[in-house]
Amino acid sequence: MVCLTRIERFNAAHKLWVDEWTPEQNLEKFGKCSNHNWHGHNYTLHVTVKGHPDPITGFVVNAKDLSVIIKREVTDHLDHRNLNLDVPFFPKNLQPTSENIVKIIWERLHDHVTDLGGQLFRITLWETENIYVEYYGE
Amino acid sequence: MVCLTRIERFNAAHKLWVDEWTPEQNLEKFGKCSNHNWHGHNYTLHVTVKGHPDPITGFVVNAKDLSVIIKREVTDHLDHRNLNLDVPFFPKNLQPTSENIVKIIWERLHDHVTDLGGQLFRITLWETENIYVEYYGE
Amino acid sequence: MVCLTRIERFNAAHKLWVDEWTPEQNLEKFGKCSNHNWHGHNYTLHVTVKGHPDPITGFVVNAKDLSVIIKREVTDHLDHRNLNLDVPFFPKNLQPTSENIVKIIWERLHDHVTDLGGQLFRITLWETENIYVEYYGE
Amino acid sequence: MVCLTRIERFNAAHKLWVDEWTPEQNLEKFGKCSNHNWHGHNYTLHVTVKGHPDPITGFVVNAKDLSVIIKREVTDHLDHRNLNLDVPFFPKNLQPTSENIVKIIWERLHDHVTDLGGQLFRITLWETENIYVEYYGE
Amino acid sequence: MVCLTRIERFNAAHKLWVDEWTPEQNLEKFGKCSNHNWHGHNYTLHVTVKGHPDPITGFVVNAKDLSVIIKREVTDHLDHRNLNLDVPFFPKNLQPTSENIVKIIWERLHDHVTDLGGQLFRITLWETENIYVEYYGE
Amino acid sequence: MVCLTRIERFNAAHKLWVDEWTPEQNLEKFGKCSNHNWHGHNYTLHVTVKGHPDPITGFVVNAKDLSVIIKREVTDHLDHRNLNLDVPFFPKNLQPTSENIVKIIWERLHDHVTDLGGQLFRITLWETENIYVEYYGE
Repeated sequence: MVCLTRIERFNAAHKLWVDEWTPEQNLEKFGKCSNHNWHGHNYTLHVTVKGHPDPITGFVVNAKDLSVIIKREVTDHLDHRNLNLDVPFFPKNLQPTSENIVKIIWERLHDHVTDLGGQLFRITLWETENIYVEYYGE
Repeated sequence: MVCLTRIERFNAAHKLWVDEWTPEQNLEKFGKCSNHNWHGHNYTLHVTVKGHPDPITGFVVNAKDLSVIIKREVTDHLDHRNLNLDVPFFPKNLQPTSENIVKIIWERLHDHVTDLGGQLFRITLWETENIYVEYYGE
Repeated sequence: MVCLTRIERFNAAHKLWVDEWTPEQNLEKFGKCSNHNWHGHNYTLHVTVKGHPDPITGFVVNAKDLSVIIKREVTDHLDHRNLNLDVPFFPKNLQPTSENIVKIIWERLHDHVTDLGGQLFRITLWETENIYVEYYGE
Repeated sequence: MVCLTRIERFNAAHKLWVDEWTPEQNLEKFGKCSNHNWHGHNYTLHVTVKGHPDPITGFVVNAKDLSVIIKREVTDHLDHRNLNLDVPFFPKNLQPTSENIVKIIWERLHDHVTDLGGQLFRITLWETENIYVEYYGE
Repeated sequence: MVCLTRIERFNAAHKLWVDEWTPEQNLEKFGKCSNHNWHGHNYTLHVTVKGHPDPITGFVVNAKDLSVIIKREVTDHLDHRNLNLDVPFFPKNLQPTSENIVKIIWERLHDHVTDLGGQLFRITLWETENIYVEYYGE
Repeated sequence: MVCLTRIERFNAAHKLWVDEWTPEQNLEKFGKCSNHNWHGHNYTLHVTVKGHPDPITGFVVNAKDLSVIIKREVTDHLDHRNLNLDVPFFPKNLQPTSENIVKIIWERLHDHVTDLGGQLFRITLWETENIYVEYYGE
């Protein structure tokens, strides 16, 4: 089995905030990420697919097709948007942390990757150049 | 003369929007950057100072002191903030494009760099990994 | 004046070869770059435009429009092509070194950038992560 | 066990093409990668070796020795070459996709890494800054 | 389970040297790394923590808290220091190779990460842009 | 005229220290860089040469020849060395700051670049990923 990773990018705004908490509690827990008027990131997304290279084409899956799916299912909905307000498939009661974003992305992509003939293996999301998260589906 | 560059980073939300225009005009001119609910970036800021290295210390200016000034005058005010709403020294009628941000940063830093004994030479701002602007003060 | 840079990428094959020389002379001058069966690179292209930010939009030029022009005039013709064989506007008797490529790109873009309202300032081309060239038009 | 990774780079030309298919079928499946006159990439290769650090030297394997082997067995044969035409150990009927290249590299390196006293763990190959593949030997 | 990685950086001097060996033996085994008067690196450290995102905060662990611990336990003691001479918790008879450094860092961080509510999963250390090591604790 | 830049890298130890000052004065001025037992960096060096591309070869200068000169005159003497102690052409009374290093490198390279047929235009030195200096020879 070989793993193929395709990288896509998106820019988005978000904030971390729990309505049931006071502003002081939000500030204490989330620091500057609780800023009332939002802040944002250039996110870098790695989608990794596992499979046997096709004996004729040499592809695990066609990276072009994979890119089309990532754009259609994920980045077209997240790029230049507000993750708290603008994304229908992002549950309103879920904090838009990178940890939660990768789980949502996994769900959006899993079956489409299977349809391409591969197996979704890992979602990696770089939030800044100093923080990233990885998710393997379980 | 040697140029010394210190790099700092900040994450911020913004949108590009002209109130006098219709939403369609804004969309046509600014594309996805006009998204009503904001979007954001990881900005990377390069501050370049010119001068003669001190014969004793070998410094154009002390990079540590320069970093303190950049944080105090610029990134502490921009990081995890909304550039349209949260930054007192950013004029309300000025679009928060990278072109305008570097000019504001130049004004915020110029005299403080002179006080350190250097000469502000260039402000570079990376908005994404594919777009950056440079400003030389005139 | 502010400088705005837009980055685009293309992958291409080339070789360096002078027909009038013997294979040994070509090998001596061009080293592995003279390999008969071609080799290639992931090129990274920086196009820098100079101008005054528009008082309303805050743009030197619209980076989206600039990207469209770079693709239409340059990268659509170079990407996944052979620089010695496939590019009509690349003179046959000109070695496809990065030095010559930036001069050709300058000519292809100059007037279109003027039409956008900016002034073409610099073309930078990264050939590998260890070699890049810059051209200022003269 | 600790994993040590050594990175090397090479530039090469290739194309993806199945002789039994029409040009239209090749274009449909391989897109721009089927360009008749080749295209190329700057490849970045990560070779990861697993083992217990030696109690005296603190090395899993000597990174210098590992580099020598990667160059001698792999990059000296691939750098500035055409992967379809110039590489004796690359089977003619195998598409030079990154997926197939990592499997060939694994076979070239496995026993030599064992001779160094380590265990080959992973081959990673970056084809562009947006696509990479990983192979763990099975 | 999601993996969260926080990156920190430090600069340090070291040399590789076995007292029981002759200078020639040290040079043969360690090459330029045996230079008597030290040399150094900009190290980049990735600390990866595994866990279930908290249902309220969306955090595996708070990246800010994780950063505080990494600084307090590791980088404050290694940054701008000599790894052979200045680090009390680095055993004198252990070569300061990246392989050994990651094992020491693992021990320094493991219990503190557990106290934060996460599970230390991986330590990655980039020694140069061409060499890095990974350690999973066993 | 086109500018060609070749990048080379070296790792070295150094400290910043004025003998005539007390340890407290050194600490105040140089901070952690005054650490008695040295610290170090992975330096990245850009050497930029200006000239007219040769009408036959398309080269400003041959990048391979330039690399040979940089190694022979500069990096072979600095890599895995101590900048305060091990480098004969580095004056003992000069602090090994990046500002002073680029001036020394300029002197070491200038005439050899002229011999290659180019004109030394700029030396850039990255000390960490957050600090770099540039020198244009005057």
